[in-house]
Amino acid sequence: MLVVMNVDATTEQIDAVCAAIRGLGFTPHPMPGAQRTAVCVTGNQGPVHRDVLAGLPGVREVISVSKPYKLVSRETHAEPTVVRVGGHAIGGGALQFIAGPCSVESEDRMMRVAEGVAALGVPFLRAGAYKPRTSPYAFQGLEQEGLRILDAVRRRFGLRIVTEVLSEETVEAVASVADVLQIGARNMQNFALLKKIARCANPILLKRGASATVEEWLMAAEYLLSGGNRQVILCERGIRTFSDQTRNTLDVSAIAAVKALSHLPVVADPSHAAGKREFVAPLARAAVAAGADGLIIEAHFDPNSAWSDGAQTVDFDHLAAVIAQARAYERLHVEGNAANASSSR
Amino acid sequence: MLVVMNVDATTEQIDAVCAAIRGLGFTPHPMPGAQRTAVCVTGNQGPVHRDVLAGLPGVREVISVSKPYKLVSRETHAEPTVVRVGGHAIGGGALQFIAGPCSVESEDRMMRVAEGVAALGVPFLRAGAYKPRTSPYAFQGLEQEGLRILDAVRRRFGLRIVTEVLSEETVEAVASVADVLQIGARNMQNFALLKKIARCANPILLKRGASATVEEWLMAAEYLLSGGNRQVILCERGIRTFSDQTRNTLDVSAIAAVKALSHLPVVADPSHAAGKREFVAPLARAAVAAGADGLIIEAHFDPNSAWSDGAQTVDFDHLAAVIAQARAYERLHVEGNAANASSSR
Amino acid sequence: MLVVMNVDATTEQIDAVCAAIRGLGFTPHPMPGAQRTAVCVTGNQGPVHRDVLAGLPGVREVISVSKPYKLVSRETHAEPTVVRVGGHAIGGGALQFIAGPCSVESEDRMMRVAEGVAALGVPFLRAGAYKPRTSPYAFQGLEQEGLRILDAVRRRFGLRIVTEVLSEETVEAVASVADVLQIGARNMQNFALLKKIARCANPILLKRGASATVEEWLMAAEYLLSGGNRQVILCERGIRTFSDQTRNTLDVSAIAAVKALSHLPVVADPSHAAGKREFVAPLARAAVAAGADGLIIEAHFDPNSAWSDGAQTVDFDHLAAVIAQARAYERLHVEGNAANASSSR
Amino acid sequence: MLVVMNVDATTEQIDAVCAAIRGLGFTPHPMPGAQRTAVCVTGNQGPVHRDVLAGLPGVREVISVSKPYKLVSRETHAEPTVVRVGGHAIGGGALQFIAGPCSVESEDRMMRVAEGVAALGVPFLRAGAYKPRTSPYAFQGLEQEGLRILDAVRRRFGLRIVTEVLSEETVEAVASVADVLQIGARNMQNFALLKKIARCANPILLKRGASATVEEWLMAAEYLLSGGNRQVILCERGIRTFSDQTRNTLDVSAIAAVKALSHLPVVADPSHAAGKREFVAPLARAAVAAGADGLIIEAHFDPNSAWSDGAQTVDFDHLAAVIAQARAYERLHVEGNAANASSSR
Repeated sequence: MLVVMNVDATTEQIDAVCAAIRGLGFTPHPMPGAQRTAVCVTGNQGPVHRDVLAGLPGVREVISVSKPYKLVSRETHAEPTVVRVGGHAIGGGALQFIAGPCSVESEDRMMRVAEGVAALGVPFLRAGAYKPRTSPYAFQGLEQEGLRILDAVRRRFGLRIVTEVLSEETVEAVASVADVLQIGARNMQNFALLKKIARCANPILLKRGASATVEEWLMAAEYLLSGGNRQVILCERGIRTFSDQTRNTLDVSAIAAVKALSHLPVVADPSHAAGKREFVAPLARAAVAAGADGLIIEAHFDPNSAWSDGAQTVDFDHLAAVIAQARAYERLHVEGNAANASSSR
Repeated sequence: MLVVMNVDATTEQIDAVCAAIRGLGFTPHPMPGAQRTAVCVTGNQGPVHRDVLAGLPGVREVISVSKPYKLVSRETHAEPTVVRVGGHAIGGGALQFIAGPCSVESEDRMMRVAEGVAALGVPFLRAGAYKPRTSPYAFQGLEQEGLRILDAVRRRFGLRIVTEVLSEETVEAVASVADVLQIGARNMQNFALLKKIARCANPILLKRGASATVEEWLMAAEYLLSGGNRQVILCERGIRTFSDQTRNTLDVSAIAAVKALSHLPVVADPSHAAGKREFVAPLARAAVAAGADGLIIEAHFDPNSAWSDGAQTVDFDHLAAVIAQARAYERLHVEGNAANASSSR
Repeated sequence: MLVVMNVDATTEQIDAVCAAIRGLGFTPHPMPGAQRTAVCVTGNQGPVHRDVLAGLPGVREVISVSKPYKLVSRETHAEPTVVRVGGHAIGGGALQFIAGPCSVESEDRMMRVAEGVAALGVPFLRAGAYKPRTSPYAFQGLEQEGLRILDAVRRRFGLRIVTEVLSEETVEAVASVADVLQIGARNMQNFALLKKIARCANPILLKRGASATVEEWLMAAEYLLSGGNRQVILCERGIRTFSDQTRNTLDVSAIAAVKALSHLPVVADPSHAAGKREFVAPLARAAVAAGADGLIIEAHFDPNSAWSDGAQTVDFDHLAAVIAQARAYERLHVEGNAANASSSR
Repeated sequence: MLVVMNVDATTEQIDAVCAAIRGLGFTPHPMPGAQRTAVCVTGNQGPVHRDVLAGLPGVREVISVSKPYKLVSRETHAEPTVVRVGGHAIGGGALQFIAGPCSVESEDRMMRVAEGVAALGVPFLRAGAYKPRTSPYAFQGLEQEGLRILDAVRRRFGLRIVTEVLSEETVEAVASVADVLQIGARNMQNFALLKKIARCANPILLKRGASATVEEWLMAAEYLLSGGNRQVILCERGIRTFSDQTRNTLDVSAIAAVKALSHLPVVADPSHAAGKREFVAPLARAAVAAGADGLIIEAHFDPNSAWSDGAQTVDFDHLAAVIAQARAYERLHVEGNAANASSSR
C-alpha cells in the first residue's frame, strides 16, 4: 500500500501518517520525490484498512499496490535512483564503468591491474577477496589478505572498490574495505545475507541469479530496500538457458524491463555472460543499447595468467576499445534525447 | 572435407578436383573466394581418403572439417555473403530493414501499410498470406488471396516482398510472388520443406527455432546451401527460456556467435522477441549493437486494430524512431571501423 | 463452445443442433459419450450467440470453453479415448508397447529385429523409412525402399507398423504401409503436415516438440481432431532444458497433466529422453508410474551396429526386462484400482 | 587423485600414505570399503606428483580423477551410503518417508500434524522454523519459537525432525533441535553456509538448486563431505524450465543419474515439484520408479488452512495413499531384485 501526500504536505503531516501506519502494526517508508512524498506501507500480509489513512491531513490518495515489490518500484518512486560513491555516480543518465580481475591474486599483481584500470579513467575496481567456487578444491580467494591488498590499492590509486561478500560472518570485514558490496548470482536469494547487508551503509551491487525471473530479482532488491539500504545497483549477468555458444545468455530484455519497472540503476556484466573474451565487446554494446547504466568487466594486464576466469578476461587495450564503443553509444543516446527534447517543444 | 586450391589454380585444375570428388561418390561444391577457391566435399558419412585429392595439381591443402556444417562456415568462405534482392543488399556491412504487418488483412489495409513502409524508405515489406497459428480455430491467413494482394502491393509501391511459406504444396505459389521466402521458427527443422525451398531461385530468410542451438540453426541453413541455394539470410527472433518479461528471450550472443561462425547475413526480429511494443526499440538497438545486419519489424498504420500480433506491432512514427536509432548506431560502427583502419596503418 | 445434450436426447434433436450450428457459419462436432452426447462448436473466432442454441429441444446447457482446445479436452469427452489398431488397443487402462530400431536398415536386418520384437509379444514395430536428421549429410533413411521392407515385415510377422511421415508429399505413400503415422517432435507445429495427416484414416502418434508447452501440444492434437481424425496418441519424449545428464529431460509431470486435461492416450519414449541405454529402464518405469498408457522403445538385435541412435538403443534381453518391469507396475495399478473400488463400496 | 591400497594393506601402511599426502601440503581422506581402502587426495589445484605416492608400501595404484567430485563419487566408494538417524535409515535399499507442513504454525497445530504423521508410521517430520520467502513481506517463520515447538513435538511423538537452516548465524541453534539439517534449493551454492554446516555432526539433506546441473549439485555435496560430514542425503525437487503445468519440472533422469554417479542416498520432493496437490501422487510414484531412496512430502491436517504452500500440501488420507503406492513399488523392486538374483545363479 502506498500513501501519496499532497505536493504541499508538511513534514508534520508526513510524520503523522507514519505514526498512524505504525499504530496499525505496519512499517512506514517515506519516499521523498522531486514533487511530492509518498509513504510506502510494508509489513502487511493482506489488505490494510485504507480509510484510517485516507482521512489524514495532507494525504492525496491511498493506492493499493498489486505488484509484490513496492520500494523498488518505479510507481512509488518515479525518478531514477542515482547511487553516489566518492563523487562517482551510477545511474541517472551517464554511463559508469567497473573493471578488474576475477580475484585478488597478490599485492604486486593487483597494483599492476589497478594502474591499468586507473589509467583508463575507470573509477571502480572490481576484484574478489572471497570467491564462490563450484569446487571446494578450487582457489577460494586470498580472503583477509585480499581485503588488505584491496585497501592498499584503494589508497594508492584512489579507486573505488567493488568486491563480493559471501558470508554473513565477513560482512563487517568486507564492508570496512569495500566501497560497494557485491552480492553474487548464487546468493541472490540468500535471504539471511541480504538482511544483514541491508543494514550496512555501503552501496550494494546485486547480481541476478542465473535462473531468477525479473520479479524474483526485484524482490531480492526489495529485501535490501525494506531492510534500510536504498543504494542498490542491479546487475544482469546472463541467465541459464539451453543456448550453448556463451557461458550464460545475456538477457537484454531484462535490462529494458527493469528500467521500466524500477527506479534502481542496472549495470551489465558481459564477461560472465560471454564466458569467452571475443564476445565481451558485442555483449557490452548490446547491454548499453538496451539501456544499461554501466558495465562491469573482467580485465587483467595478462588475462592468460589470471588465476580464475582467464578465458573471459580482457587486457587493457581490449578494455579501452570496449569503453570507447560504449561511450560512443552514450553520446548518441544523449544527442538522441536532446533531439527528442527539442522536437517535442 | 575441404580442398583448398592454390591462389593461381586454373579453372581446369578446379574442374579436375571436382571430377575426382565425384569419382569417389561424393559431391563437390566449389566456393570461389576473393583470393582463392576452396572445394567443399559433401555426401561422405565418414572420413574421405584425402591422399587421392591432396596429390592433384593446384591443390594447396586438404583439411578435415570438424564442425558438422561446411558450406555455411566462415572457415570455408571467409568473405561475408551479401544477399541481393532487386538492387537492395542484405549483409556486407550496411544495415537493412524489413517492415510490415503480421498478416495480410485486405487489399485496402495492405496498401495503407505499404504506403507507410515505403514512405520511410524501407525497401522490404513483410506480411503473411499463410500464417502458422497455434490454434486451428485462429485466423490462418488470406492464403491465395493474400498472395494476390501482396503482388498488387509490390507492383504499386516497388517494395520487395518477404513472406512465409508453410507448406511444401504452396512453395511454387508463394515463390512466384515472394522476393524472399521466409521459413518460420516452427519449421526450422521441417527438413522436407527446407529441401524443397532450397531448389527455388528466391533468397531465403531462415528463422531460428525457439529452442534451436546455434549449431542446429546453422545445420538447417546447411540444408539450404547443400540443396543449391546460397542466398540465405538468418534471423534471430528470441528463444524460449524461463524469463517471462518478454514473449521470447532475444539471444544477442547468438547474433555475435553466428557472425563469427558463418558468412551468412543475420537479421533480428525484435517484435517476436519482445511480444510487447514498448520493448521493440531497446531490443532492436541491442541486436544492431551485437552485430545484426538488419531488422525485421512488425509495423501497422493502426497496431491496435491488427488482426494478429497487435501487442508487439508498432505504428509508423514508432518505426521511424527505431530506424533512426539503428541508423545512428550503424554510422558509429562505420566511423569506428574507419578509425580502427586508420589507427592500424 | 460446447452444447451438452440431455441424456435422452434423440438423434433427430442432435442433428437439429448440428444444423443450427452450421446455419451460424460454424462447424459442429458431435461427441457421443457413455451417458450423453455433447456437440463441440468450432470455427468461431469470438463468442457465439448462445441463446439460439440453448433454446433448441434436447439441449441441457451451452457452456463456453475457456481453454483454447476443445475436442481433445476431457471436459468435452470424459471417457478415455482408446485407439484400436488391428485388434490391439492403446489407451483405456492396459499398457501397450511399441519397439524397434531408429531406422529401417535393410530387409535382412529388419527381419531379424522384427523377429525379436514379435518374440517378446510386442505387437507394434517402430522403424523410420524417412528420418529427420539435423545434418543434410547424415543418413536420411531408405525412403521408398524402407516402406517396402516395412510392408514385407508386417506381412511376415503380423506386426503393426509405426513409422514417421516427414513430408506432405509422402503422406499417401507412408499411410499406405503404416498402421500408425508418427509425427516427429520437430514437426509438432508443422501445421500443413498436421492438416494433411488429419485427413488420413490411420491412427496418429503425435510427439511433443522439444520446447512445446502442454497447451501447445494439445493444440497440435486439436488440429488433428478438428481436421477429422480422432485416433490420436500423444507421445512425451523429453524436453530441452539445461539439465545435461540425458539427451532430453523426460517431463513426467506432463504425462500426469495430459491425462488430467485430455481424453487422449499418452505414451512415453524413454529412449529419446535418455539418449543413453542405461537410463532407458528407469525412465520407462517413471513414465508408467506417472500414468503413461504405453512405451515406445528403440530396440535392435545389435545396438552398437545400429545405423542411428545406437547409444540409446537396447537389445532384446534389455527390452524384455523393461517390459517385465512395466508390466509389474501395471498389475500393481490394476490391483490398486480394484482395492480402491472394493474399499469405496 | 585417488590412492588405491592393496586388499591386504595394513593400517600402518594407510597411515603412512596419509602422512605422505599431508607432507605434500594436501589433505588425505581414507575411504574404507568392503574390500579395500582408497585414500582420496584433496586440496591440490593441479596434478600431484604421483610417483611419491605410487612407490609407498601397500599402494596398488594411483589414479587421476577426471570428474571434479571425488568423495561423493561411486568410483571412490562403491557401496551406497546409508544415513542413520535414531534407528531409521535413509539409503541402502529400503524406502524412507519424511512428511509435514511447510512451516511451523503454532504448538497446537504442530502437535495435530505430528500426531497424523506418526499415526501413519512416518518416522521423520519436516517443518520450517526459518522460511526462505521470495518476498520480505511474507511470513518468515516462527524462528526461535518454531524451534522450541519442534523440540516439544519431537519429545512427545518421538519423531525425527528435518528442518531448514537459512543462516550461518543460526546453524548452532537449528542443529541443537534438528535431527537432519536441510539446505534449501536457493542455498545450494551458499558456500559459506555449506562450509559451516559441514562441521556439524547432524546428517544433512541437500536440495538441488532450481537451475543446478547434476555436477554442480554433486560439487555442493562435495563441499559437505570434504568439510567433514559424510551423512549427506540429496534431494531432487524439480528444476526450472519453460514447462508450465507444474511449479517445477521433476527431473527423474537426475535421480537415475545421481544413483549411478554417487553413493549418496537421494530422496525426491514431489510437493515442490508439483506445486499442485493433484500431481503429488504421480510424481511421487515416478520418483520411486526412477530409483529414489525416499520421499519428502508436504502434509497437513487441513491443507487449505496452511500458512504457506497450501496448494501443494496433502491431507493425511492423501498421504496414506501416496505412501501405500510407494511401498507397493518398493516391494516390487525387492521381488524383482530377488528374481534377478535367483535367475543369475
